[in-house]
Amino acid sequence: MENKRKPYQLVSREWKKEDTVISLKNTKIGGNNITLIAGPCAVENEDQIFTICEFLSKKNIKLLRGGAYKPRTSPYSFQGLKKDGLILMRQAADKYGMGVVTEVMETTLVDEVYHYADILQVGTRNMQNYQLLRALSKIDKPILLKRGMSSTLEEWLLAAEYILSGGNEKVILCERGIRTFETATRNTLDLSIVPLIKALSHLPIIVDPSQGTGIRELVTPMSVAAIAAGADGVMVEVHNYPEEALSDGPQSLYFDQFTALMEKVEKVAEINNRSVDYHSDEKLVY
Amino acid sequence: MENKRKPYQLVSREWKKEDTVISLKNTKIGGNNITLIAGPCAVENEDQIFTICEFLSKKNIKLLRGGAYKPRTSPYSFQGLKKDGLILMRQAADKYGMGVVTEVMETTLVDEVYHYADILQVGTRNMQNYQLLRALSKIDKPILLKRGMSSTLEEWLLAAEYILSGGNEKVILCERGIRTFETATRNTLDLSIVPLIKALSHLPIIVDPSQGTGIRELVTPMSVAAIAAGADGVMVEVHNYPEEALSDGPQSLYFDQFTALMEKVEKVAEINNRSVDYHSDEKLVY
Amino acid sequence: MENKRKPYQLVSREWKKEDTVISLKNTKIGGNNITLIAGPCAVENEDQIFTICEFLSKKNIKLLRGGAYKPRTSPYSFQGLKKDGLILMRQAADKYGMGVVTEVMETTLVDEVYHYADILQVGTRNMQNYQLLRALSKIDKPILLKRGMSSTLEEWLLAAEYILSGGNEKVILCERGIRTFETATRNTLDLSIVPLIKALSHLPIIVDPSQGTGIRELVTPMSVAAIAAGADGVMVEVHNYPEEALSDGPQSLYFDQFTALMEKVEKVAEINNRSVDYHSDEKLVY
Amino acid sequence: MENKRKPYQLVSREWKKEDTVISLKNTKIGGNNITLIAGPCAVENEDQIFTICEFLSKKNIKLLRGGAYKPRTSPYSFQGLKKDGLILMRQAADKYGMGVVTEVMETTLVDEVYHYADILQVGTRNMQNYQLLRALSKIDKPILLKRGMSSTLEEWLLAAEYILSGGNEKVILCERGIRTFETATRNTLDLSIVPLIKALSHLPIIVDPSQGTGIRELVTPMSVAAIAAGADGVMVEVHNYPEEALSDGPQSLYFDQFTALMEKVEKVAEINNRSVDYHSDEKLVY
Repeated sequence: MENKRKPYQLVSREWKKEDTVISLKNTKIGGNNITLIAGPCAVENEDQIFTICEFLSKKNIKLLRGGAYKPRTSPYSFQGLKKDGLILMRQAADKYGMGVVTEVMETTLVDEVYHYADILQVGTRNMQNYQLLRALSKIDKPILLKRGMSSTLEEWLLAAEYILSGGNEKVILCERGIRTFETATRNTLDLSIVPLIKALSHLPIIVDPSQGTGIRELVTPMSVAAIAAGADGVMVEVHNYPEEALSDGPQSLYFDQFTALMEKVEKVAEINNRSVDYHSDEKLVY
Repeated sequence: MENKRKPYQLVSREWKKEDTVISLKNTKIGGNNITLIAGPCAVENEDQIFTICEFLSKKNIKLLRGGAYKPRTSPYSFQGLKKDGLILMRQAADKYGMGVVTEVMETTLVDEVYHYADILQVGTRNMQNYQLLRALSKIDKPILLKRGMSSTLEEWLLAAEYILSGGNEKVILCERGIRTFETATRNTLDLSIVPLIKALSHLPIIVDPSQGTGIRELVTPMSVAAIAAGADGVMVEVHNYPEEALSDGPQSLYFDQFTALMEKVEKVAEINNRSVDYHSDEKLVY
Repeated sequence: MENKRKPYQLVSREWKKEDTVISLKNTKIGGNNITLIAGPCAVENEDQIFTICEFLSKKNIKLLRGGAYKPRTSPYSFQGLKKDGLILMRQAADKYGMGVVTEVMETTLVDEVYHYADILQVGTRNMQNYQLLRALSKIDKPILLKRGMSSTLEEWLLAAEYILSGGNEKVILCERGIRTFETATRNTLDLSIVPLIKALSHLPIIVDPSQGTGIRELVTPMSVAAIAAGADGVMVEVHNYPEEALSDGPQSLYFDQFTALMEKVEKVAEINNRSVDYHSDEKLVY
Repeated sequence: MENKRKPYQLVSREWKKEDTVISLKNTKIGGNNITLIAGPCAVENEDQIFTICEFLSKKNIKLLRGGAYKPRTSPYSFQGLKKDGLILMRQAADKYGMGVVTEVMETTLVDEVYHYADILQVGTRNMQNYQLLRALSKIDKPILLKRGMSSTLEEWLLAAEYILSGGNEKVILCERGIRTFETATRNTLDLSIVPLIKALSHLPIIVDPSQGTGIRELVTPMSVAAIAAGADGVMVEVHNYPEEALSDGPQSLYFDQFTALMEKVEKVAEINNRSVDYHSDEKLVY
């Protein structure tokens, strides 16, 4: 592979040989663990988030995803339940012993999201929002850094370098599809970036096949493929009533589809001598 | 052209038939005017910015561009002179009766940049930084909104819609090249977006062929082409010593190249019954 | 500009300093001439092609374009009138003293198309059809080599190198838009390639804004922009009844639109000290 | 998934519900089989091809790939051993009871390649070479149709439709990466197209991760990922001395890497209730 001098440092394998493993209260991300993060695109109401969270906890899923503050291309689209959404997610997650993964769109929201979330997500539109990256480099919770929709591998690692060089080493990369000429899928999920990142960086990397494809039927095969390619986990959208979802229904899994996904992911994880981290009894306590 | 219902409203031709013309103290952007904005990629020191500004003022250029706070892909690259850069630009512009165009990267800097600048620029990486767009929708100075490097026409107009719907109608669009497979140029300058924007929106649109091509020799032909295509102006990088520039030297024009550019732009403007706004005697007074 | 060793040779400026000018019976392409090529997307019937040809000849246009054999993405689409189309084009062109530009899709058709055409066009899908390029390198008529829809500058010049190295130096390059993420236009017309090609190669280059944009209203501004950027001409689609065209009606100009285009192109050509080659009295004789 | 009327017919699931399984003398492609095709990028000499073929046959691989006629971007690059290459491949394959997969670039070569090959490959540059597609629609051997480097799913299926509508139903699709802005990999391997093709078409689809990534270290993870995503097989480049290969050495596997790949592919195939077709004793006889 390429040997030319790299513009990033702290995120590189040269800087740190062993895999970075990120510890949360109830789980670890990276190393031999395969992490499943699941939940709705957006938190919509109490019933929805508690129903989904209960289902996931029964499946021993440890990390709940959900959007409270939603970046939307149009100022007129549903922008999320905001703080109410964060509170609902936290309540649901606490009831079922899960951790919360949710997006922080703005620096003014870092404190608030920090209070409710266990992992703070940077969305694809904000990968080069340096004000936000610097703010997140000063906190002590893990950051899920999504790849910009037209960002190169190098730009992505440099965005992570912003966070590490500011003092926060807990960065999880998340491939979520890139923008190409192909419109048959919502984005083009670039799985080849996974083993390449693994070779060049010590950071864990997970894959989001829901955003990556935009098509429910592709989420399970692409999740399994992601794990086969060496990803440390997948983040998928699951909904109790996908056809009534306020956003991204067509890419949200039904409960039984998610159950089937888990079975396949477990098996393919074994091939890479890894295991999904959900058979444990330790629960998150707040 | 397309007749389907559009997701944007305030920026559309349907909403407002006549061209938006944006008034500054010393010039107007849009309408029959062709606007030239010029200056270095980054403000580097007093001598540099005053030398360039003096040259441009002699050419009757009314708007000075220059980066004080620079968004950089790497945390280790030169990040600009910051506030010192803003002060230098303002001093130079005031001495020569020019206006200042400079980027505002972060919401925390809006007040500071507002104080020194006449036009606040949103860079390509921030086109969908909604926190920033909303902050800028609350001020009364014009916003130069660069197109995201992988943003569609619709996403771009919706980003402008964020600013207009927040209360600031003074938005100038700026095409600066999109990211494609072609690496012979730094970006692919999408001039066809210019007449398409003109058909769909009442907002003025200018073109940045320096960022758009990354190659000094292409800046003049693409400036002329941009005006031919119907753009309301161009923004180009000019430097007294391009080969010693701290950033983007290879795409910066020499002074004599800029003079030649002006002559050609004047002529092509006439074809579209427009004229470059620099023969006036009114000067900016602060 | 780039100084690294180039993989192409015969097409390069290093190999031949002066512009290649290609002589036809009634016109020259390159040098100080600006060439206008116009006609329908496809030859449809005798009335259509003679009507269009008569109009163009009255405008002193010297080169008639039209598809007889049409490469179509679907095997079920209209594939052109084939040989009958070639015959009709030839008859119309002869009647009005014009030259014929038409596509040759296949090696088995080279002899036939050679017989009827003055310039043989290689379409975007065939830019790397080496069998076809080699066959065309053995004939003595000019080749209009369209850029592949995802071809880099280097690949395009190497495709031309195939033709020159086989013995045919009469190659005209034609930029017709590249495939990008942007779907607001049919393709993204890459005008910055024009001055870059001019710097790197001695071959003439023309631009096809009809295919390049797919939108009638953009054809005139982009034609003018192409000439402003330094192109040696444009090729545009014109139809007597665009709304009834069998293919590509939405990008075909009405007659009066074409007249307006000519006037603007003439003016912008002057700025580059060039002139449209249609004021001559010499006519093509066969 | 999408329900709009599709422009293709014979290749669609609506036309034919059950998977197409393509029978060769020594193996079947599609159905429950996972197919491995391996060999050098180009046939270079007798020793090379026999050594590689012997190794593969010991591994019970049934299909040997190798380029004899090579489409090259530059007319000055190594163009393959041509007919000598075909003869050597056939001899090696016959000695070890294997089938031959090789590219046919031109219609004039169809008869010759047909004589020596078991599967005729259409390269990415020729996916819309309709003369070639039609010629191949008239033969009775399987066609491996590579995706054009900037072809959409729809264009690809329509290219296959050309072959089926001409009479040859034995088409195997091959995803080999698309052209995007990302240059860290040679192409962007689009694995999400695999389950989407499976939903829309009855044709078998295999994946070429060697061309798709251009990086040896990524070939195994992406092969495993391809099978996990539902592909019917993979085609990979293997070489006895990759560092001395005349073409594409950096993406060719060492023998022991290929052995490791096989083990992983076997395991992941099982998860999808499929098995690699190489444990059989039946040998190809000519």
